[in-house]
Amino acid sequence: MVEFIGNMAAVLTTTAFLPQVIKTLKSKSTDDMSWSWLLMFITGVFLWLIYGLSINVFPITAANAFTFVCLVILLFIKVNNLFKSR
Amino acid sequence: MVEFIGNMAAVLTTTAFLPQVIKTLKSKSTDDMSWSWLLMFITGVFLWLIYGLSINVFPITAANAFTFVCLVILLFIKVNNLFKSR
Repeated sequence: MVEFIGNMAAVLTTTAFLPQVIKTLKSKSTDDMSWSWLLMFITGVFLWLIYGLSINVFPITAANAFTFVCLVILLFIKVNNLFKSR
Repeated sequence: MVEFIGNMAAVLTTTAFLPQVIKTLKSKSTDDMSWSWLLMFITGVFLWLIYGLSINVFPITAANAFTFVCLVILLFIKVNNLFKSR
């Protein structure tokens, strides 16, 4: 039961994050996403991933691995926009 | 060291969430926050809180307890706006 709760939590908070990623992929606009937010969030999610692996807790590892991939995509778009605007 | 990583992850991802809460508290506008996102995220964070308590992992419990309080505030503002707009 406890693992089920952890997995459900992981699915819900990760799924809740998807609309923002999809919106950004479609619009290619990252103006409403500050660098400080993105870098803080990516670092935090990466540390959650390391932590989940370290204490061997699957829901943490799975949720943050997926979110990390999404954030790397957002970061790629934001960096791309930076070079285009020069 | 592992606990330090977990605590840092908790601080970073929770702190990254604060600007949005502060912006909403100031603007009192919740238009860009869909009901589905808010309810999905609140449920997910609540389950993470239960999960953290169940497996006795402090960083999960602390991060999600704080985020849950922030989300309840956002939900209160959104419900308040709903009644005002009637």
